[in-house]
This record gives sequence, C-alpha cells and structure tokens, in this order.
Amino acid sequence: MLVSTTTVIARYAETDQMGIVHHSVYPIWYEAARSDFCKKAGLPYSKMEESGVLTPLVELHCKYIRPAHYEEEIEIKTKISKLTPVKVEFSYEVFKKGETTPINTGTTLHALVGKDLRPINTKKLHPDIYQVMEDCMQEDA
Amino acid sequence: MLVSTTTVIARYAETDQMGIVHHSVYPIWYEAARSDFCKKAGLPYSKMEESGVLTPLVELHCKYIRPAHYEEEIEIKTKISKLTPVKVEFSYEVFKKGETTPINTGTTLHALVGKDLRPINTKKLHPDIYQVMEDCMQEDA
Amino acid sequence: MLVSTTTVIARYAETDQMGIVHHSVYPIWYEAARSDFCKKAGLPYSKMEESGVLTPLVELHCKYIRPAHYEEEIEIKTKISKLTPVKVEFSYEVFKKGETTPINTGTTLHALVGKDLRPINTKKLHPDIYQVMEDCMQEDA
Amino acid sequence: MLVSTTTVIARYAETDQMGIVHHSVYPIWYEAARSDFCKKAGLPYSKMEESGVLTPLVELHCKYIRPAHYEEEIEIKTKISKLTPVKVEFSYEVFKKGETTPINTGTTLHALVGKDLRPINTKKLHPDIYQVMEDCMQEDA
Repeated sequence: MLVSTTTVIARYAETDQMGIVHHSVYPIWYEAARSDFCKKAGLPYSKMEESGVLTPLVELHCKYIRPAHYEEEIEIKTKISKLTPVKVEFSYEVFKKGETTPINTGTTLHALVGKDLRPINTKKLHPDIYQVMEDCMQEDA
Repeated sequence: MLVSTTTVIARYAETDQMGIVHHSVYPIWYEAARSDFCKKAGLPYSKMEESGVLTPLVELHCKYIRPAHYEEEIEIKTKISKLTPVKVEFSYEVFKKGETTPINTGTTLHALVGKDLRPINTKKLHPDIYQVMEDCMQEDA
Repeated sequence: MLVSTTTVIARYAETDQMGIVHHSVYPIWYEAARSDFCKKAGLPYSKMEESGVLTPLVELHCKYIRPAHYEEEIEIKTKISKLTPVKVEFSYEVFKKGETTPINTGTTLHALVGKDLRPINTKKLHPDIYQVMEDCMQEDA
Repeated sequence: MLVSTTTVIARYAETDQMGIVHHSVYPIWYEAARSDFCKKAGLPYSKMEESGVLTPLVELHCKYIRPAHYEEEIEIKTKISKLTPVKVEFSYEVFKKGETTPINTGTTLHALVGKDLRPINTKKLHPDIYQVMEDCMQEDA
C-alpha cells in the first residue's frame, strides 16, 4: 500500500490576520500532496491528463484540529482510501514535522472523467491507469 | 430566519487548467458570503473580532455538483444551520445567477474562541453576539 | 476615454498575519478590474479568448502606498494607458471607497497572442478588437 | 554575497485556464524564496517579526519572459540588491530546473517598519538585523 509523504513550508501569503494558515490553503496542500503521490506511484497527474483522464473534485471534507503557522515545515501523508472505476478517494493526514498527531485530516473524492468532463469507466477505457491506482491500495504494494 | 444572498464574479486567477473555477476557491467564496451574512445580521465580523471573538474553522464539507467558469456571476445563499454556545455551523448553496439548482453546496463549522484561540462560552461571555446568531436561526426572524 | 470603476470587498483569506491585505492580492484585483473594464468596453475578455486572442502578462508594476484591511470596500479605476498592435498596457488606481488619494497604483503590460501563445498583430488580424481598445483611449470616447 | 536558491513545484491550483501558472503566483514564489533567503542568512523572517521589524512591500516589479506549467520544478535565485537603514530591495531570477535563462525576473522593495507599520531606522534601532542584511550584500561574504 502506497502512503506518500510530502513536505511543504507554510508561506506568508498563506497566513491570515488570525496569524495562522488560512483554512482554504489545506485543500491546496492536499492537492500538492496528491500530485506528489501520483508521481511516486509512477502516474504523474500531467500524464493522466494527457491520456485524457481528468479528476475533478466531487467532495471535500477537512477537519482542522490545530493551526499551522508561517515558516513551519508541514508533512502531508497521502493514500488512496476508496476506488471504483468511476471515482477515487484520497485521504490526507497533515503533521507539523516531527510530530505524531495530525493537525488536520481530510478526504477528497474525485470523479474520473474525460476532457469533456463526462464520467468514464477507467477500468475498461484506461486499464493501465486503473491498475496503478488499484496497486496503490494493496496491502502488499 | 436570515438567509443572505451574496454575489461574486468568478475571477481569471480562480480558474485552473481544466478551464473551471478551482475547487479551493469555494471555501473562499463561502467566507465572503459568511462575512456578508454577518454584516447583514448587524454583526460585522470585524466587530466580532474586536470584541475578542474569533471563529476559526473546525470542519469544512463541500459538494461540487457542476463547474463554474470565468466571468460568471455566482450567488451564494448563506444561513446558520446549527448553534451552540461554543460552535456555529453555516450552510451554503452556490448558484449560477438565474438558475435554481445549486452547482455547489457546503457547510463550515466554526469554534467560538478568544484571541488566544481557546474556546469561550459566547452565551455567557458575549450574550449580545450569541443573541444575534440565535435570532438569525428563528423561523420568524 | 473609458475609465471604469470596479468595486471589490477585501476578503478574510486575502489578509495576512500583518493584519493587512497581502500584496499578492493587488494583481488579482487589477485583473478583476481589467475584466470589468473589457466588459464595459463591449469586449468581454471571454469573447476575446473565444476569438483566439489571449493577453498574457509581460510586465507588472505595483506601488503600495497604504494598506487595505478586511471588509473594506475597495474601488479600482482602470484605463488603457498604452496600445500597439502587439501589446496593451492597463493602468490602475486603487482607492478605499470615499477617499480621493489612492492606496495603491499599478500597471500591467500584456502581449496580444494567439492560442499558441505566439504574438499576433491584432490591428491586422483582429481589427474589430483593436478598434475597441483604441476607442477606449480616445479623449472623446 | 549571499545568493540563495529555492525550489518550488508548480501547483495545479496555481495554473489558470490558459494552461500556465497565473502571473499572481510569482510574487508568492518570490516571497517563499525571500523567506528561505532570510533563513539561510541566519535571520528567519519570523524572528525578525518577533524583534518588532516588519517588512511590508512598497514596490513590486515583475517581468514575465516564458510561462511555467503544472508540476514543473522551479528554482528561484534571490539576493539583496539595495539596502538603506529604512528600505531593502530583493532581486529574483526564476528558472525552470536545469535551464540557464530565467523565465521570470523581479524585484521587491520593502519598507522596514515597526509593528505600528511606521518606518524605523534599522541601522540604529536593530543594528544586528541591519548587519546581517549588509553582510549578505558584501562581495566577499
């Protein structure tokens, strides 16, 4: 099972006047982590788009447990938590570097669609892409 | 019951290379709408912060139904859907102007905290602020 | 000469931990104002893109005079300050509503290019679009 | 003379519907690079803020030479190009990794101010901070 770890550094522009990283930044960190996950899985997202598979977001859930601050090193652990031929769900745990309890957790559910944004059965139409995602979920992978 | 309507115009910077408004923009639109809701309720968020009540996000849920595009006029309908002395939940429905089915729906759950980001019982410590929020939920308001 | 006025409200997400609107937000406000300018000139930017004319930024200059804050109403005055068949420059003055001295001024220089991002002579290839921009600069317009 | 190199990966959220990184992202990359520069100079920006020195932007100039794309590794070379007791200017060159001609260049001019956003003479009031910045400009440093 692939669980990737991606590091980002909290940017000044990402803070707000409460002095913490603004909540709208986490979905962007999830995306950077998901992008890194796909690359590590051997399936860079840009290649997926070139093959004609887009993955627009269908649902987003975030839990904000503790705030992050400017300049902190943040680690995002990413895995695929659900997979069907037409949808894939990623799960995220966000940590301050060196800590073991997450400051934020979340999931993103994505439709698997073509360039016209209509659903496609990736298992049938893009079995190679589907296989990579399935392998990422295997306990032994 | 107060349901506010807030209009935003989708910005070019808010689009992504799929040619649609990026999903991370919706929480920012929710916030602009929530800010407008509070102002219309007679409780501008800046005044709330001055009184020492901050409302950091605890949970965020978004459902993406159909995409929005550059230059489109977007209407966000906002209401308070849950309230306790230490938490408040806002609900949002996002429409393309002139349409009756939403393109996106979501909720944000906020902790009611002091400037030190610790929970406060607003019903006891800030009864005026609590009252305004409660009034917004009344069917007859 | 067309000088458009566009209003935006400073968003919480646009503030930073200095308690002011982050400097990276002004180019986005310029763009929202430019988009509004083009619409008011009868040439919505989306139509321009459909006609095959894109206007990527080539140069950006901003002067930050005084800060803007959350919830403030901001007015951006926009005009075309330079025009050649292959480039157009817009100028911006940013005001707090009701004030007469700007808090920020800036210019954006844009290449006029086709969908392949290569320069095109708009005066020859898109005379209708060029004419609209030229009219916006006329003293009597 | 200190010239720092900072790497960022272009995020999907940073692209726009032209399929390139949006121009408003470069000032944010400059800032991430400047933050990294200060850290490498032994003067993390968060420490500077704690000491009571803020550095709001006064002027921003950017030149966009060639576009950046999603997933590309971007290197930003940063140095201090001007320094007075009340102002500091940073210069940036942005490269695609492995290339030798920049895709973007820029400068940011910052006021050196106190927490009340009023100018301070850092050479007198914070000689240690001023010294670090001056050392970064020395040819032999």
